[in-house]
Amino acid sequence: MARDPALLADNLDVVRASFGPVAAFFNDSPWRNRLGQPGVCDFAFGNPQEMPLGGFVEALRSNVEPRNKEWYGYKGNEPSARGIVASSLRTSIGAPFEPEDVALTNGGFGAIELMIKLLANPGEEMIYSVPSWFCYAPMAHLHGLRPVPMPMTKSFGLDLGALFGAVNERTRILVVNSPHNPSGSIASARELAELGARMEDINYGRRRPVWLLSDEAYREIVYSDGRFEPPLRHVRRSAICYSYGKRLLTPGQRVGYFAVNPAAPERDDVRDAMFFVQMATGWNFPSALMQYALPELEKLVIDVSALERRRDHLCESLEALGYQVTRPKGAFYVLVRTPFEEGAFTEWLSARDVFVMPGSLCGIPGHVRLSLTASDQMVAWSLPRFQEAIATGAEKRTRVSA
Amino acid sequence: MARDPALLADNLDVVRASFGPVAAFFNDSPWRNRLGQPGVCDFAFGNPQEMPLGGFVEALRSNVEPRNKEWYGYKGNEPSARGIVASSLRTSIGAPFEPEDVALTNGGFGAIELMIKLLANPGEEMIYSVPSWFCYAPMAHLHGLRPVPMPMTKSFGLDLGALFGAVNERTRILVVNSPHNPSGSIASARELAELGARMEDINYGRRRPVWLLSDEAYREIVYSDGRFEPPLRHVRRSAICYSYGKRLLTPGQRVGYFAVNPAAPERDDVRDAMFFVQMATGWNFPSALMQYALPELEKLVIDVSALERRRDHLCESLEALGYQVTRPKGAFYVLVRTPFEEGAFTEWLSARDVFVMPGSLCGIPGHVRLSLTASDQMVAWSLPRFQEAIATGAEKRTRVSA
Repeated sequence: MARDPALLADNLDVVRASFGPVAAFFNDSPWRNRLGQPGVCDFAFGNPQEMPLGGFVEALRSNVEPRNKEWYGYKGNEPSARGIVASSLRTSIGAPFEPEDVALTNGGFGAIELMIKLLANPGEEMIYSVPSWFCYAPMAHLHGLRPVPMPMTKSFGLDLGALFGAVNERTRILVVNSPHNPSGSIASARELAELGARMEDINYGRRRPVWLLSDEAYREIVYSDGRFEPPLRHVRRSAICYSYGKRLLTPGQRVGYFAVNPAAPERDDVRDAMFFVQMATGWNFPSALMQYALPELEKLVIDVSALERRRDHLCESLEALGYQVTRPKGAFYVLVRTPFEEGAFTEWLSARDVFVMPGSLCGIPGHVRLSLTASDQMVAWSLPRFQEAIATGAEKRTRVSA
Repeated sequence: MARDPALLADNLDVVRASFGPVAAFFNDSPWRNRLGQPGVCDFAFGNPQEMPLGGFVEALRSNVEPRNKEWYGYKGNEPSARGIVASSLRTSIGAPFEPEDVALTNGGFGAIELMIKLLANPGEEMIYSVPSWFCYAPMAHLHGLRPVPMPMTKSFGLDLGALFGAVNERTRILVVNSPHNPSGSIASARELAELGARMEDINYGRRRPVWLLSDEAYREIVYSDGRFEPPLRHVRRSAICYSYGKRLLTPGQRVGYFAVNPAAPERDDVRDAMFFVQMATGWNFPSALMQYALPELEKLVIDVSALERRRDHLCESLEALGYQVTRPKGAFYVLVRTPFEEGAFTEWLSARDVFVMPGSLCGIPGHVRLSLTASDQMVAWSLPRFQEAIATGAEKRTRVSA
């Protein structure tokens, strides 16, 4: 890949380097080649493996027929959709959100891009915990920020010592993703209270304060042994980046939002700047149809208890087979330690129609990530393959040590 | 607006300054307050003033019902939608477009953002002709580019002397918008051939060549006395930024594309970088539904002959009243010289329920822009108001000179 850097934008090489393996997996891999075919056990992405919720389809169907001539005209932050979000956040967080605190975006990605462009200058830094979602780093790079990945604790808690040790005068954004992709951990009130206190200390007298980007894409996907604690309750300078793609398992329909904490000292400035930054980040608004559907979507969540049963069955079965498994409290991924080398393991599985996400794509090599959005049938079919794999691994180790 | 620049990103003040008047008009103006109300004559934006095309609604309706479990899963540059666009461009331009030359984007804005991020480094420059669409400048600013507006000729032709006089070592993108918003001029084969030759001269031996951004949002809106000449036939280093929002008058549904010229020497590099730049610009893809609808949308265009009849009637009537009018050959705007001071004129009209776009928002003060998407009824109702206005203006001038 020795391209002449003069051909395209200078920062694309570093974007490519940080995202290349994910892009290759998404666009050109055995997983992509078999996508949607019968017999495939697809644990790779948080993609739907069952038909969409009836309520979701109905919310679209009932809004397709135009009711007036402006129906499909330009939509910005439409008051009705904004109002629904603000009201829902008032209830769930207990903070005085107003419609003007909410920017409706082209999915959760659009919310993150908006937050970066609202706050950060090129050359500033964005800290996040690893393992992590695989798009923070390339998004930061594309916008000229330096991504700063810091390890979590062994139990996938926030390592506040590591995170705040990485703060310097260029730090502008600190990401908390709770419930966490890929580990399923949920930040506790105690962790967040300490985070908030340390952010206050750090921001005291600081010219360009550090903001918390609260990535809450999995906020509604919480199991009976977990409880979501809103980070915004603990950190004043903070904003939510949200996607409806996870709670509804319809990531192709692109609707999400950015919401600034009403307690943020810069609240008014953020509100005033939202619209034109959304415009200049490519008319970063959801489609008219998704704005109309939003009041219905806000009432819907996929069947979390079914995910929980699947989580329990899958984790217990894998553990019984001898796998080391991280049982999530939220989100819909299970981290599994590989019984032999990660690349060989994923290859071995994909040759048997079982597709998983290599852990190295999420910053946790030696693991794979399994999405619980796979169907029960896929789980049933894949378990004997996992059994065979660990036996193969044991045999390999025996041979090596022999 | 003496904000502390430390609060938000540094470049927001310049984005705000270049877009503030448009944002104020869009979000908080007499036009916004009366939007969609009966009796309003709305010539302001290229927004629908009649019900959407039946074929458009049918294309959505017939794709809402999911046909498989991946229906609303993540969509990237889907092969079927890309293939339709490539095939249509092969026919209309006569160049060997392949599906891989096409990036499906979140509307025309998304295509422009993608092109900026693919090619340009912060500090580089983007040249465009004024009058112009009002979003080039703020989009350039947000991404750290310097927007360089250069005047057109008096008849709204490309002033190649002015454009190439503005090229320096930092120039990276040159915009041609044909058919042109707001004048309706169409770049001729002769103009474009000369443009192409001069770009070859300038790019010869240049480290970072200048690219043509061909904004073709109005490509299908061409009247019987006009003919669209594809700029890509004349300029190798070029790409189309396209929106379906104009041809269908459904700008709220967000679907467009970026297509690189197959003749571009850097074609392969652009193709290779597309996907990850789309991801990092906020998952800049159209929704699943619009991707499914695209084959139908590619067959549909609003009734251009109705627009042409409206153009002729409006232009002739206004001229008969004594107005100086620019009759467009394409796109759907009519520039009208104001009979008295622009602000006072638009205020006078809006007090009488006639809403127009102030020319100063498009870089042509002393004019207003009228969108032909207004209904015939709105035209009929507004003409007596225009008559009254010009009489008022004549009276004002008489008083001033008396």
